[in-house]
Amino acid sequence: MSDANQTIDELGRRARDAAADLALRSRGEKDAVLLAMADALVAATDEILAANAQDVERGRAGDIGDAMIDRLTLTAERIAAIADQVRGVAALPDPVGEVVRGYTMPNGVRVQQIRVPMGVVGIIYEGRPNVTVDGAVLCLKSGNAVLLRGSSSAASSNAALVEILRRTAAEHGFPADAIQGVPSEDRATVSALLHARGLVDVVIPRGGAGLIQHVVTNSTVPVIETGVGNVHVYVDSSADEEMALAITENSKVRRPSVCNAAETLLVHHDVAESFLPKIAQRLRAAGVTLHADEQSRAILGDDAVPATDEDWDTEYLSLDLAVGVVDSLDAAVGHIREHGSGHTEAIVTSSLEAARRFSMQVDAAAVMVNASTAFTDGGEFGFGAEIGISTQKLHARGPMALPELTTTTYLVQGEGQIRGAS
Amino acid sequence: MSDANQTIDELGRRARDAAADLALRSRGEKDAVLLAMADALVAATDEILAANAQDVERGRAGDIGDAMIDRLTLTAERIAAIADQVRGVAALPDPVGEVVRGYTMPNGVRVQQIRVPMGVVGIIYEGRPNVTVDGAVLCLKSGNAVLLRGSSSAASSNAALVEILRRTAAEHGFPADAIQGVPSEDRATVSALLHARGLVDVVIPRGGAGLIQHVVTNSTVPVIETGVGNVHVYVDSSADEEMALAITENSKVRRPSVCNAAETLLVHHDVAESFLPKIAQRLRAAGVTLHADEQSRAILGDDAVPATDEDWDTEYLSLDLAVGVVDSLDAAVGHIREHGSGHTEAIVTSSLEAARRFSMQVDAAAVMVNASTAFTDGGEFGFGAEIGISTQKLHARGPMALPELTTTTYLVQGEGQIRGAS
Repeated sequence: MSDANQTIDELGRRARDAAADLALRSRGEKDAVLLAMADALVAATDEILAANAQDVERGRAGDIGDAMIDRLTLTAERIAAIADQVRGVAALPDPVGEVVRGYTMPNGVRVQQIRVPMGVVGIIYEGRPNVTVDGAVLCLKSGNAVLLRGSSSAASSNAALVEILRRTAAEHGFPADAIQGVPSEDRATVSALLHARGLVDVVIPRGGAGLIQHVVTNSTVPVIETGVGNVHVYVDSSADEEMALAITENSKVRRPSVCNAAETLLVHHDVAESFLPKIAQRLRAAGVTLHADEQSRAILGDDAVPATDEDWDTEYLSLDLAVGVVDSLDAAVGHIREHGSGHTEAIVTSSLEAARRFSMQVDAAAVMVNASTAFTDGGEFGFGAEIGISTQKLHARGPMALPELTTTTYLVQGEGQIRGAS
Repeated sequence: MSDANQTIDELGRRARDAAADLALRSRGEKDAVLLAMADALVAATDEILAANAQDVERGRAGDIGDAMIDRLTLTAERIAAIADQVRGVAALPDPVGEVVRGYTMPNGVRVQQIRVPMGVVGIIYEGRPNVTVDGAVLCLKSGNAVLLRGSSSAASSNAALVEILRRTAAEHGFPADAIQGVPSEDRATVSALLHARGLVDVVIPRGGAGLIQHVVTNSTVPVIETGVGNVHVYVDSSADEEMALAITENSKVRRPSVCNAAETLLVHHDVAESFLPKIAQRLRAAGVTLHADEQSRAILGDDAVPATDEDWDTEYLSLDLAVGVVDSLDAAVGHIREHGSGHTEAIVTSSLEAARRFSMQVDAAAVMVNASTAFTDGGEFGFGAEIGISTQKLHARGPMALPELTTTTYLVQGEGQIRGAS
């Protein structure tokens, strides 16, 4: 067994034992420790900021780019916001124990399908230290032990956060091993985690397309794929122009770096002449670069750069937008079926039939009709928390929160019933 | 691209197109074609039996064993039973279009989580030709296109069945490519199917432990793991003896070859002296060989053969039963957590507390309290059909039927709402 496999084996076994304990905890016990964790994080602000400063300094020296530095950097305000998130999770209902279905067989045997924790959840993520706390508390609330494999760029921050959470868990009679960090200096620990079948019940990657692709194609542990959003806004011929302008702008510029941000605008041929110059003006004012196909360029001229083939498949996560003109709703749907990532697709239309066909034919976790793509979000959907946005079809699709971190078991109760021959 | 990859690529693309069509079909259309398929199967009995005879003859020549020959063999009665199953699926509610959740956001945007088909389902299975029909009609009813990769030992039977189903689909205006067989003479098609990410949405293996292990450790397409059942019956110190005898016997001998059959009997030390000789007598009469640990052998003597370490991990699927004596409920739970496959675990007890602890601590798809393990079955649970019994925690756990062959999408409808900055 390699060092990394050995490490994961040890962490995984401890996590399994912790999970067996967690599965029996009541909501009251779990909420108490979560509230204590929120307080502990705020109380340890200085300790966290000192650790974070080391990461930021290392990042600056390594020249990782301003956007990465921004994601990495913690402040007292951000720590307070993270603590508030933890309190929010404490306030959410406990999914464990929920009876999903229940009925009595003709022979009197009672069947109940009951939500139970998954067991051990592995989370593999990149530079944002807040994911450490998010992942830990969502798993704890749902009765799961967690293995947190963050990025080496945030190693000091993550270590400090995990230490505070573990300390608080132990102080409240919870197993500290419910929350464990996986060493990030050794890249091989990712691979070991992805092959820990039997010890780890599910792996959730949170990060960019490269990370997610690596995880889904290499894991033998079941994976929930999250987050890559090559999101389209389609402006139909019947669209209200003002509405289409507002939705396109909001979908693109509200927060370009998140997965629900629009990356491609498709405009129906009949309205392109009127709509494109107006949206170009608005977006240019917001600093957006348009990457336009030939038909759009014929209208926009030098307001846009020529789109390449790659543009249609690119999740920019920046102030860039691919723009294309389509001849029909079917052409828009065809384009999206070919290039979309199954995250969020939006149509702006006043036609009921267009809305119906678009929503039945694009194949995505969320379909927006006359609403901004920015609404694909666990918080907006009222889940109170979000572990990520699933773009796969198995288990969970769309924003995932506490129930998505559970599985179910059938509890079957009788008085000695046996089954006949047929 | 290898030949096998090329084959799967072509089949997969046709399946995707068929799936886009199927997703729009109403329940009425789907039920009509299913009923026609049932009739067509019965009408083609001679054709199917002739094809099946070729497989059986090849199997006999190849000396594949009586149990395999039995699974492979079709008769007019078995074909009639398969057709009845198809009619049963037609009678089931259509899961597609079900609104799982629905609510309105504070800003007036309406959110609905709606069941939609997965898309393309791959089923990889062994010698039973009835799985061909089962898999095809369950997928069709749930709006999915299916790629059926059966065993080469049943190649002629499967080809005949697929041909009848495709012909009937086409006659009723459905895409024939909704149901496609994958060539079984080339083993490489399995591997190609397991790596068809983007074309195949989920792979479901149905068969023995070897097949399932191969699929789950090699697939980059999401897998639903089914069927391996190392099933335990635990007889608690407080068990009603008659009930324990009946449940143990029924769990073992009713149908030893299916995954819900018991493979290990654990008996509490306090009742072993009385219980073991009685159950041994009953099971011996049914032809069962007991593989007993030392403590059990001290009671049973030569009525049992010594158990080896492997016995505790073996899914016999035959008239064999491992037998062990445990000192406590905790020891039974510990044994099951170590050796169980997460399928079905049973306790016979009159203690409420023992029932509660057992059901919360063994980690299985189904937990039986005072009922036979044979009840873990889609038909018994009232699902009307079964695609397999999932022993994994993601997506589906326990018997799977139509809803488990669907995913969901969020349909979000507004009147131009955009999202604020925070």
